[in-house]
Amino acid sequence: MSSGTGTPALRKPDQILRHRLARSAGEVAGTASSPTDVRDWVYERGLVQTHEVELIAFDEMDRWAFNPDSGDLGHDTGRFFSVCGLKVETNSGPIPTWTQPIINQPEIGILGILVKEIDGVLHCLMQAKAEPGNVNGVQLSPTVQATRSNYTKAHGGASVPYLDYFRDFARHRVLADVLQSEQGSWFYRKRNRNMIVEVDEEVEVLDDFAWVTLGQLNQLLAEDDFVNMDARTVLSCMPSGFEGGNDRVGDGLASAIARSCDPFAGSMFSPAEVLSWITSRHSETQLSTELIPLHAVEHWRRTSHEIQHESGAYFSVVAVRVKTNSREVSGWTQPLIQPHGLGMVALLVKNVDGVLHALVNARVEPGYLDVVELASTVQCSPDTYTKLGMEHAQPPFLDYVLKADPRRVLFDTVLSEEGGRFYHARNRYVIVEVPEDFGGEGLPDYRWLTLHQINGLLQHSRYVNVEARSLFACLRGLR
Amino acid sequence: MSSGTGTPALRKPDQILRHRLARSAGEVAGTASSPTDVRDWVYERGLVQTHEVELIAFDEMDRWAFNPDSGDLGHDTGRFFSVCGLKVETNSGPIPTWTQPIINQPEIGILGILVKEIDGVLHCLMQAKAEPGNVNGVQLSPTVQATRSNYTKAHGGASVPYLDYFRDFARHRVLADVLQSEQGSWFYRKRNRNMIVEVDEEVEVLDDFAWVTLGQLNQLLAEDDFVNMDARTVLSCMPSGFEGGNDRVGDGLASAIARSCDPFAGSMFSPAEVLSWITSRHSETQLSTELIPLHAVEHWRRTSHEIQHESGAYFSVVAVRVKTNSREVSGWTQPLIQPHGLGMVALLVKNVDGVLHALVNARVEPGYLDVVELASTVQCSPDTYTKLGMEHAQPPFLDYVLKADPRRVLFDTVLSEEGGRFYHARNRYVIVEVPEDFGGEGLPDYRWLTLHQINGLLQHSRYVNVEARSLFACLRGLR
Repeated sequence: MSSGTGTPALRKPDQILRHRLARSAGEVAGTASSPTDVRDWVYERGLVQTHEVELIAFDEMDRWAFNPDSGDLGHDTGRFFSVCGLKVETNSGPIPTWTQPIINQPEIGILGILVKEIDGVLHCLMQAKAEPGNVNGVQLSPTVQATRSNYTKAHGGASVPYLDYFRDFARHRVLADVLQSEQGSWFYRKRNRNMIVEVDEEVEVLDDFAWVTLGQLNQLLAEDDFVNMDARTVLSCMPSGFEGGNDRVGDGLASAIARSCDPFAGSMFSPAEVLSWITSRHSETQLSTELIPLHAVEHWRRTSHEIQHESGAYFSVVAVRVKTNSREVSGWTQPLIQPHGLGMVALLVKNVDGVLHALVNARVEPGYLDVVELASTVQCSPDTYTKLGMEHAQPPFLDYVLKADPRRVLFDTVLSEEGGRFYHARNRYVIVEVPEDFGGEGLPDYRWLTLHQINGLLQHSRYVNVEARSLFACLRGLR
Repeated sequence: MSSGTGTPALRKPDQILRHRLARSAGEVAGTASSPTDVRDWVYERGLVQTHEVELIAFDEMDRWAFNPDSGDLGHDTGRFFSVCGLKVETNSGPIPTWTQPIINQPEIGILGILVKEIDGVLHCLMQAKAEPGNVNGVQLSPTVQATRSNYTKAHGGASVPYLDYFRDFARHRVLADVLQSEQGSWFYRKRNRNMIVEVDEEVEVLDDFAWVTLGQLNQLLAEDDFVNMDARTVLSCMPSGFEGGNDRVGDGLASAIARSCDPFAGSMFSPAEVLSWITSRHSETQLSTELIPLHAVEHWRRTSHEIQHESGAYFSVVAVRVKTNSREVSGWTQPLIQPHGLGMVALLVKNVDGVLHALVNARVEPGYLDVVELASTVQCSPDTYTKLGMEHAQPPFLDYVLKADPRRVLFDTVLSEEGGRFYHARNRYVIVEVPEDFGGEGLPDYRWLTLHQINGLLQHSRYVNVEARSLFACLRGLR
């Protein structure tokens, strides 16, 4: 049957994109269109942007206040976000019930990277952007990071550059567009729309923006506190290019990573088994959550400057004043979440018959919309166990990671979490290769997956948590 | 690298299963191992099972009562389910806010079909099972349909036959295992685990059970009120066999269905575009729901025998007494939801360059965990618009379906919804073929998808609603 008028021609599966992505990943030194040294460029942009942040008392904040009835901390417009209380009951983990403060931000924001082929190489338009919670001011960020308040102008500030490419993209080509969760211990059901849009047309490059290749990004992911969380989560949703890689980690591993991205290379668990395992974790986990007034949260104390757990563990809620010349508005005050201690996010990987597998953990966090998401092998704040006197409850494999032979450590970088909501929140991201006969899948909450299987899950919402997404972006970048 | 000890060999993608499924779908007359006439067999089983159902007053129910404080209707154990109130606010649809009664059943049940190859042909173990809400007593049902109350023995009755195959299936082969939603207008966040498990071992066939081929099931789906909802939803999650089909619907359409299941046949919208469209529907729909006491629901009236909307539209909550000799217990009373009027669930399909596409609708229902799921082109209760005086608000394409040329109607069967919760709930399921130049995708909530794309979404939770799943099971059965 021939195509009728008015009917678009059928599209065939795209067999080219992965080669185009692999080509961009091969350009580790950049191109004529990208900064020769992205580190220098970001540093220079940081010098131009004044961005002073100081911790202040809650009552020094403008337009943010504690509600006299609920104790919730919110903005007088009711917009942006609020800090309220959460009551949790679960059959998972060592603590069956607790209450805690949590950020409630029911809007869906946009995190977008614009890509464009320049001289035959895909480039990503990245931004040098300061956030108040960053330890170092400016980090490499996606083209757009916009809350709904941003793009509906709740700030009363300037419009967000390049946002229209992500709001009206019918003329362009979408490579990824998926709602992904954020930290489920700090955010209640927060999701952002992770988007990658390719354009053919000319794009004006504004100050603080630059075209960067995937190869450059992959190398920069290994720099401490350099590529921000929003960029990492969007990059993790990029379809994978798997033509092989460079020799940074040795031919055996580079080949194992490439084969791990290949749908025909085989896997320890069949696709049906992986989905069944995830279904079983959802079915067997009972978790109920209820938003409660912040003043009904127990074992947390509020002082003039912070809200803190009586043990000193977990995190504090603090307030900051920001002065800047680079943002939509010239200055503001806001609350932030300040985690206590450096976190650990570690992934064990192994080469099984030439195909790399990663040990993922079905993890329960109270802020997830659907209870369980896949996390890296280890995700914890080691200090917490000490502060709570619960060293016995340390998660599996933490000790193994801490004592790993340095020659088996493929990646070890401290990266920052979202500086717009978290103050100096940093995790040590580690990838350790283990021998092929290493077990792990005997534990019901752990399974070995290939990168192809993980990439497939990343196309959908609510499968892979934000810390694991960061680490998978780094793992793919190892090639 | 060779496989280490203790490491399972890598599994390659299964290229055989679709041929095995196609072989079973080809056995439309059954085999030596299946009943020659499944209709006769189900009818005979119905004669053996006494199953009397009568509508009673609420205060005639045993152990079910209205809570004096909340007005919620529940069981004195707190188990099974309850009928409570829901408050809805949304930017979608003609009514921005309302309250309604809804079934709250936060447990995850199991709907399972056991399959086994007999004489080289896959067979499904089906059950002839009566449910109190069925218009005709016994219908063809999955091997297992068990609520958590069932399998933890809240009934105090007999254990559920074959349940162990679905609770401990590591020795067997899982073909599908996915949490799927149920009616989002009547259930609050209800999900069941839809499972298909293949066994090699001998299986004792109990009374009321029989091995049936996919070909037989496909033909039986076209019988009014014959294959029950639970069987249909599980069948929809079966991976697809696409070797071509029989000649029931003409070679052109059979071929278009087979090609529509083929991942390499092409599609009007790329996979990334389909996922992006779904993401956009989630991002742009605002819907908030809150469980409220049943007595706080407005515009609904409770009499001795029912709870009904003052317009007579929507549904009633009623009570029944059941006497039976075939169930886990000999008799019981319970509430049921009784919808008003025959529903319409219709799918428009078209042949685009030899590949069948179906027009799906991103639909908002308040009971969905995540606001939007894909529905068939039309899903409504036509009487509702008359009773509410809202004929102008009839959904798109309803009129087209009602006036369709009978020669273009590929499927037209009345099927029952779950008889364990719904009383005489029946929908007319219709599939209509439209010309290739028929539009539809210009409406933001509608897109044309191939069966391969829909089959992919059916492997995951929360993409395709229960009415559409029924219709896709029927559509694949047309071959």
